[in-house]
Amino acid sequence: MATSSMLYNPPPITRSNKKRSLSIARAQKEAVLYPPHTSSSTQAIRLAASLSNLLHLHVEAPPGTEDLRFSKRVTSHDIEEKYSAPMKSPKEVISSKWREMHGSSDWKDLLDPLHPWLRREIIKYGELAQATYDAFDFDSFSEYCGSCRYNKHKLFDELGLKQNGYKVTEYIYAMSHMEIPRWLERSRLVDTWSKDSNWIGYVACSDDEETCRIGRRDILVAWRGTVAPSEWYEDFQRKLEPIGHGDDHHARVEHGFLSIYTSKSKSTRYNKSSASEQVMSEIRKLVNLYRDRGEEVSLTITGHSLGGALALLNAHEASSTIPNLPVSVISFGAPRVGNGAFRDELHQKGVKTLRVVVKQDMVPKMPGLVFNEGLERFDEHITGALEWVYTHVGAELKLDVQSSPYLKHGLNFLGFHMTETYLHLVDGFLSTRSNFRVDAKRDVALVNKACDMLVDELRVPHSWYQLGNKGLVCNEYGRWVKPRRDPEDIPSPIEGAQKHNLNIEEAQKGRERLVHLQSL
Amino acid sequence: MATSSMLYNPPPITRSNKKRSLSIARAQKEAVLYPPHTSSSTQAIRLAASLSNLLHLHVEAPPGTEDLRFSKRVTSHDIEEKYSAPMKSPKEVISSKWREMHGSSDWKDLLDPLHPWLRREIIKYGELAQATYDAFDFDSFSEYCGSCRYNKHKLFDELGLKQNGYKVTEYIYAMSHMEIPRWLERSRLVDTWSKDSNWIGYVACSDDEETCRIGRRDILVAWRGTVAPSEWYEDFQRKLEPIGHGDDHHARVEHGFLSIYTSKSKSTRYNKSSASEQVMSEIRKLVNLYRDRGEEVSLTITGHSLGGALALLNAHEASSTIPNLPVSVISFGAPRVGNGAFRDELHQKGVKTLRVVVKQDMVPKMPGLVFNEGLERFDEHITGALEWVYTHVGAELKLDVQSSPYLKHGLNFLGFHMTETYLHLVDGFLSTRSNFRVDAKRDVALVNKACDMLVDELRVPHSWYQLGNKGLVCNEYGRWVKPRRDPEDIPSPIEGAQKHNLNIEEAQKGRERLVHLQSL
Repeated sequence: MATSSMLYNPPPITRSNKKRSLSIARAQKEAVLYPPHTSSSTQAIRLAASLSNLLHLHVEAPPGTEDLRFSKRVTSHDIEEKYSAPMKSPKEVISSKWREMHGSSDWKDLLDPLHPWLRREIIKYGELAQATYDAFDFDSFSEYCGSCRYNKHKLFDELGLKQNGYKVTEYIYAMSHMEIPRWLERSRLVDTWSKDSNWIGYVACSDDEETCRIGRRDILVAWRGTVAPSEWYEDFQRKLEPIGHGDDHHARVEHGFLSIYTSKSKSTRYNKSSASEQVMSEIRKLVNLYRDRGEEVSLTITGHSLGGALALLNAHEASSTIPNLPVSVISFGAPRVGNGAFRDELHQKGVKTLRVVVKQDMVPKMPGLVFNEGLERFDEHITGALEWVYTHVGAELKLDVQSSPYLKHGLNFLGFHMTETYLHLVDGFLSTRSNFRVDAKRDVALVNKACDMLVDELRVPHSWYQLGNKGLVCNEYGRWVKPRRDPEDIPSPIEGAQKHNLNIEEAQKGRERLVHLQSL
Repeated sequence: MATSSMLYNPPPITRSNKKRSLSIARAQKEAVLYPPHTSSSTQAIRLAASLSNLLHLHVEAPPGTEDLRFSKRVTSHDIEEKYSAPMKSPKEVISSKWREMHGSSDWKDLLDPLHPWLRREIIKYGELAQATYDAFDFDSFSEYCGSCRYNKHKLFDELGLKQNGYKVTEYIYAMSHMEIPRWLERSRLVDTWSKDSNWIGYVACSDDEETCRIGRRDILVAWRGTVAPSEWYEDFQRKLEPIGHGDDHHARVEHGFLSIYTSKSKSTRYNKSSASEQVMSEIRKLVNLYRDRGEEVSLTITGHSLGGALALLNAHEASSTIPNLPVSVISFGAPRVGNGAFRDELHQKGVKTLRVVVKQDMVPKMPGLVFNEGLERFDEHITGALEWVYTHVGAELKLDVQSSPYLKHGLNFLGFHMTETYLHLVDGFLSTRSNFRVDAKRDVALVNKACDMLVDELRVPHSWYQLGNKGLVCNEYGRWVKPRRDPEDIPSPIEGAQKHNLNIEEAQKGRERLVHLQSL
């Protein structure tokens, strides 16, 4: 990895400030419409040449091409080097500055320019947040729709996240409404999964090696955001509810988020206890375990979108109930969560929040998009006192889609919001006055996992993260069938400390229900 | 397999004639909108129970359910039997009736009820036609877009079609316009593939075992149809062109089809000779080879959609140039191709055509949908003489989407047209007076390979035929890359008998072109 001095003092580059003409397209979930722009196409083609080789395609970079957006010329030597290059720089030991990295000084002087150690930590947490999507079973035809596809011991292995140095200790479930097809509701084939309880995240803990590198035992909670953009509007009910138990009930948070965090019901299988109860129980357990060993412990809570909102609620609770615990939130594309008083309480309790925000992303502007933007011009004191006004919390790392030559710049509400877009931009971020980092190593192809953000010249398919044949396999008779889950991947509900075996009981209940239905 | 008497005399069943109320949805390529219909939902649920087990899901059929649409009750015993049941009945030797099966008597008395031997042959040819889609590389980011993904020796293996008993001998390419993204055109990275030459089909031949079973050496030509529905309209130019070399130029065929069949250009890599020249050269070679051995030889030409149209043109040419060769066309969802005089010529030359048509499919009604339907009421003699009126050729096997309890009945123009829908309906067809065949064995899941036709209760994902991660794989550095094709799968152009090695020459030309582009 380049020395920090080189990164702190990037070579002066004149950023081209061409404004791209955007066609105003209807806001569609996945639509990308952008007019071809001649000079940027040429640049893109040159870029494509180098990156196409990165992606093992036959197009070579022509010699001697000059690109003002990069600090040095791309040569064929660089190209050959890159596609056998690791995706990350070697890890550095950050224990000497861990508290600052964790936000003890509100990340002062660490965000612009972005400190390389902090960049790595942000990407680490972002990947751990992204895991909550990648492993989520959203197949409405699956009997386990709404659960995690893998058991907690396998999760990081299956997703290639072992190298982050964490181990999952427990899964969290929440009563979170998900869209399920009408026929499924009618048939009652699936009761508790998609309707009531969903896998909403997990608790993990740094392993010994990572603990050593980062200077303390880090308890990590990752919260899943919304699975589909259509759920955004369902989650936002534009109504602030009080939070906390103090006499002073001025702290209020958005109703929908709070509901997800605290709901429980005896009739569900996985939320006889709420997400809040589940997560706090596990956090306490781990804090005690490691403090008893004499270790320093921190709590880092992360999440994207809705998950970032849940992270704040979690942070509020944890800081209220566990003394002397450094609690930080690293969120990605999170909406506003509560009012000024809520923000003040978090501040009082010592919670440090770093919001990673893409300028073009609509979600961080929600809720309160309609009435809040106008108020921002008022005196901060006045707006803070207005209990019903949502406000953001903490420090902000602001990213810009237009800073990356790899991304299409046309309207793409979904693409602007995706975690992988965020991580790409963090990876390339040097400072607000610099261009995209030349030695950014993170695999650019990841951006297009679930959207269409990369310029076509890179020839990366859009929305490519998919199961072959949607999970169907051909059996010995040539029939295409859905294989059963490994028994070890069939989720066990949490009920206090009691665990049930889902398989037999559920199947039996399912059959009984179907027989009953047929007899109607 | 059940005896033919049982199949010829199906048990009398009162078919429920409920008309489904269809909501009139806008015609969308892939839209399926259908209102839930209570009694059919109940039926569907019962059906789902049995078929869900077929698909290895946990839902059991309730005992004692009665379904008027089936000739017998479904019991759990049948269910368990089915999912370890082969997809096809054991093969029968048809050599004693091969000429009739090949249409020597225009399939008289073989279509309604459908003779089981003929059913099997139709499905065989349909699967061989479907192969032209399943192996087609339509990835616009691939440098081999427009070619077959596999070399000719592997094709049937890769697609699981070995058991049909044919071997591919040669591939055919045609100058067929395909949509390519604008940036690709501009960059000239891909020249001959998507713009000029595409893999349009193949020639195959029955192996010794199949030859024995069917009573003659069958030369098979399969033509590919349009890859995307949007191409339909490009192919149809609504202009009849003369065909053939006779004095009497009254036989006319649709211009677009003829153009694809006969175009060639020295500037292309794969169509220095036309599709017509390529296919006739191979057919002649095989006919001579096997006749020299003293074998009986037949020519069967098959295709879906546009492919069915090309099949007719091929049949016209083959019957005009090779004497005493039984030539038959089995087409699926083919549009009209030529006028009455064209139809008469084919008839004169002894070509036998069996058009498999789904009643709800729009394509067989094209071209001429606008002006032809009114004319059909006129005296056949008058319309035949009208040189500019498209007309159908041969015998027809008419299928109905509503005959299958497995299919959604709402508007679905794409789904009505898909080969897999056709093959499902052929598999279930007994006669126009019977219900869907109870012991139809073909895997129902296949219907949803590339559309959304199966009732949801079956829980088969729609459009499931897809590459995992769209063909990207994770290399040793954790980067997602497009693997190169095996050298053996890189296509070699046909130029007479000369074959070139694409790889080196193409790559070099590609580089030169790119360098030239950069220097502009």
